[in-house]
Amino acid sequence: MRIDINCDMGEGFGSYTLGDDAAVIRSITSANIACGYHAGDPLVMGSTIRLAMDHGVAVGAHPGFPDLMGFGRRALETYPGEVKHYVLYQLGALWGVARAHGATVQHVKLHGALYNMAAFNERLAREVCEAVTAFDPRLILVTQPESVLARMAAQEGLVVAREFFPDRAYTDSGALAPRSMPGAVLHDPQEVRERVLRLVREKKVRTITGQELTMEADTLCVHGDTPGAWQLAATIRQALEGAGIEVVPMHRFVG
Amino acid sequence: MRIDINCDMGEGFGSYTLGDDAAVIRSITSANIACGYHAGDPLVMGSTIRLAMDHGVAVGAHPGFPDLMGFGRRALETYPGEVKHYVLYQLGALWGVARAHGATVQHVKLHGALYNMAAFNERLAREVCEAVTAFDPRLILVTQPESVLARMAAQEGLVVAREFFPDRAYTDSGALAPRSMPGAVLHDPQEVRERVLRLVREKKVRTITGQELTMEADTLCVHGDTPGAWQLAATIRQALEGAGIEVVPMHRFVG
Amino acid sequence: MRIDINCDMGEGFGSYTLGDDAAVIRSITSANIACGYHAGDPLVMGSTIRLAMDHGVAVGAHPGFPDLMGFGRRALETYPGEVKHYVLYQLGALWGVARAHGATVQHVKLHGALYNMAAFNERLAREVCEAVTAFDPRLILVTQPESVLARMAAQEGLVVAREFFPDRAYTDSGALAPRSMPGAVLHDPQEVRERVLRLVREKKVRTITGQELTMEADTLCVHGDTPGAWQLAATIRQALEGAGIEVVPMHRFVG
Amino acid sequence: MRIDINCDMGEGFGSYTLGDDAAVIRSITSANIACGYHAGDPLVMGSTIRLAMDHGVAVGAHPGFPDLMGFGRRALETYPGEVKHYVLYQLGALWGVARAHGATVQHVKLHGALYNMAAFNERLAREVCEAVTAFDPRLILVTQPESVLARMAAQEGLVVAREFFPDRAYTDSGALAPRSMPGAVLHDPQEVRERVLRLVREKKVRTITGQELTMEADTLCVHGDTPGAWQLAATIRQALEGAGIEVVPMHRFVG
Repeated sequence: MRIDINCDMGEGFGSYTLGDDAAVIRSITSANIACGYHAGDPLVMGSTIRLAMDHGVAVGAHPGFPDLMGFGRRALETYPGEVKHYVLYQLGALWGVARAHGATVQHVKLHGALYNMAAFNERLAREVCEAVTAFDPRLILVTQPESVLARMAAQEGLVVAREFFPDRAYTDSGALAPRSMPGAVLHDPQEVRERVLRLVREKKVRTITGQELTMEADTLCVHGDTPGAWQLAATIRQALEGAGIEVVPMHRFVG
Repeated sequence: MRIDINCDMGEGFGSYTLGDDAAVIRSITSANIACGYHAGDPLVMGSTIRLAMDHGVAVGAHPGFPDLMGFGRRALETYPGEVKHYVLYQLGALWGVARAHGATVQHVKLHGALYNMAAFNERLAREVCEAVTAFDPRLILVTQPESVLARMAAQEGLVVAREFFPDRAYTDSGALAPRSMPGAVLHDPQEVRERVLRLVREKKVRTITGQELTMEADTLCVHGDTPGAWQLAATIRQALEGAGIEVVPMHRFVG
Repeated sequence: MRIDINCDMGEGFGSYTLGDDAAVIRSITSANIACGYHAGDPLVMGSTIRLAMDHGVAVGAHPGFPDLMGFGRRALETYPGEVKHYVLYQLGALWGVARAHGATVQHVKLHGALYNMAAFNERLAREVCEAVTAFDPRLILVTQPESVLARMAAQEGLVVAREFFPDRAYTDSGALAPRSMPGAVLHDPQEVRERVLRLVREKKVRTITGQELTMEADTLCVHGDTPGAWQLAATIRQALEGAGIEVVPMHRFVG
Repeated sequence: MRIDINCDMGEGFGSYTLGDDAAVIRSITSANIACGYHAGDPLVMGSTIRLAMDHGVAVGAHPGFPDLMGFGRRALETYPGEVKHYVLYQLGALWGVARAHGATVQHVKLHGALYNMAAFNERLAREVCEAVTAFDPRLILVTQPESVLARMAAQEGLVVAREFFPDRAYTDSGALAPRSMPGAVLHDPQEVRERVLRLVREKKVRTITGQELTMEADTLCVHGDTPGAWQLAATIRQALEGAGIEVVPMHRFVG
């Protein structure tokens, strides 16, 4: 049994830092690196790539909306072609910086509002698939299992990594329970740990209503930008490895 | 005898356009495409690449300082590593968009203040060389013949294209006469035409003081952002072709 | 009988220009000046204010979303307080530049997506009213007659100028016909002229379905950013003045 | 005897924070609030103004170069009129947000590279004076005592507050010792405390070469963006108040 752990990284900008990349890097296997639109700048990208390499962590692109002020978290209307080109631009930019540091780009994971919108909007999903296909069809696309984007990417012959959020509750249909719903965010490390083990070993998740749901995942998303977040990441990794599950970069077993 | 003609292009941004790319594209062989820092955005980059391809014009990156408000024309202090990473980021971004349109990137030409500063500043020149070498050492670097950057790039094994400005006067040392000097900018198309022919055929330029100077060039820089500029480009191209000189993209004969 | 003619102006940025401000300024009485978020920069704001003053045209703020790449035309999700502070920031910035040129700020007109969204979204409308009230309750707020924003502003004691679009068709309910609807944009200058005269003299508009609608307006919106736009503005002004209608800045008769 | 303590504040942007404003606010009397160019955004400006008001701290504008990526610390070439308009824009923007929170703007202190360049460059100094004079000639301009800007501002009838840096060494000519010089930055709180007391009580400073220098200051600059910085601010304030010196906003005694 194998699983990947991913985390958004390199989300500083200029003099600003966000999250504790140096702490969380020790527990993850894939780093989603911001590409300068919602966060990140060329120097931050370079040092984050180096940090990932130093820890044997695979590098991925983390493209977002061009909204630094809103950290890419706000829905933005786009015209046809914009999202495709935004993704190409950011993928290329990360690739350029990675190349200088001797790193290869393993995967793409969209950020924030773009992640949420492209998951279930047919046109945006298509533009993302077109961008990844045109840029490098061997890149792994990280997305939610039951999304429009996941299905479309698979149809287009892209390699998809299915993502699970250990500290988020799911509805009976397998969607993330909205944060506004009571119980949508899990805070008990013990509960998170058991949940993760059960998912990986039994492919089962208990939903927010108490139902059993079958779910498969290739990568677990952890966070680095909230206090104590990296501890949760460490807890999850220890639990997995303690249970004999291999925690390795997704390219080792996906695709 | 062969020569290339290059022009800065794709220098719009969002709803803004600058220069008459559709007119000047007919006279040039290499397009320096803005990469989103001093000008350009992903969509503009895409449509400019397509325009170049439709006219058999080679595509190059045109990285500048992150100063959209100043159009990359203002000197900006940078810390070690910044210029290297700015160039990598922009090279990669253009490469990403180019890939989706089936174009290859032929060359790099720096923009504005970065062009001027890197030409004669040792540290900046080194960072530019490092970026190009790391990204793709087969890229042609367009720069001024007698510059620090030209010499360093050659030493590093990079392919250099020497650039000549047909409508600018040169000093006796082979440097561009500063725009503030009377006669620094040539406005007579007839004079520009003769100057260009003499440069290509005899490798000679008359300096601003009337001296004869030996000069070799691989590419001629024309402009698209001033009224009547594309006519001058057309004049130059016609003169060259009328004289039996081949006007072709630089990769056909440089390197 | 009196009416104002307004136009968006100063929508360049750095080296970019947009629209022919110098042409359209001769036909209008109120200038909505971009404030640096969707367009405009401090120097452009300064020169536009000066242009307006030279022509006896009143100065207004034209705040938009922080989306230069999308020219403020794209819907953007915002969190509570953001729109209020965006408006305050931009109002203040224009006020600061205006002060140095001896101009006073007469009015506020939102731009693009912010104009459209705040017109009918209760929360955004409230934030706009709060910003204007806090900044200077004597500022005139330009908005669509039957909008949520118009009603709320009136309730809050703000001075509202009702805006009419001479080259746009209206539905039977008095809303702008969406651009996607056939006939939504009027291109015949003669038709536009008669429409404007009838609106001002009889307070009547023929809707897109042919119904008669009673409508009152204080200001007519003309454009400067499409070819031939300023001619239409000139046509409208001549028609009005030829009919003995006073064309003067809105502060002369509104409030 | 009276003195002011100022600190740069509100230097976050969007999701980013910088410095511990909530800690340092307790020790200062004047807050220099970033205005959106090198740092700060409308919401951050609003919350920082409110924080200042809650602690009886006076509000000032802290304009910088339009270089968020470089945090305004990098020298930037500017064309005539640009600095004047950048200052007007940012002053106005802060004024707009301040107005909504019921705050008045007490002073202006330039940021980073703009602070350093305008202090000794005649043209920049003139543009700053013009901006402040045009905006509101009662604003206090905070600058270095022996600078070109201080002299010019005084000549223009502006109110100047002379600034002293407690943790920085001075040369015999009264200039700040460059950071690259050994001993340029003082780290011993005890030394800083004695230095400040001596400055306020005796108007004397020991220079980096050991000479005695006469110096007068109205405000002490402390920092909030380095670990332990706010403790130094607290130490300074306690020392001053313990010595019976009134620590109050500069408008209470300057001008």
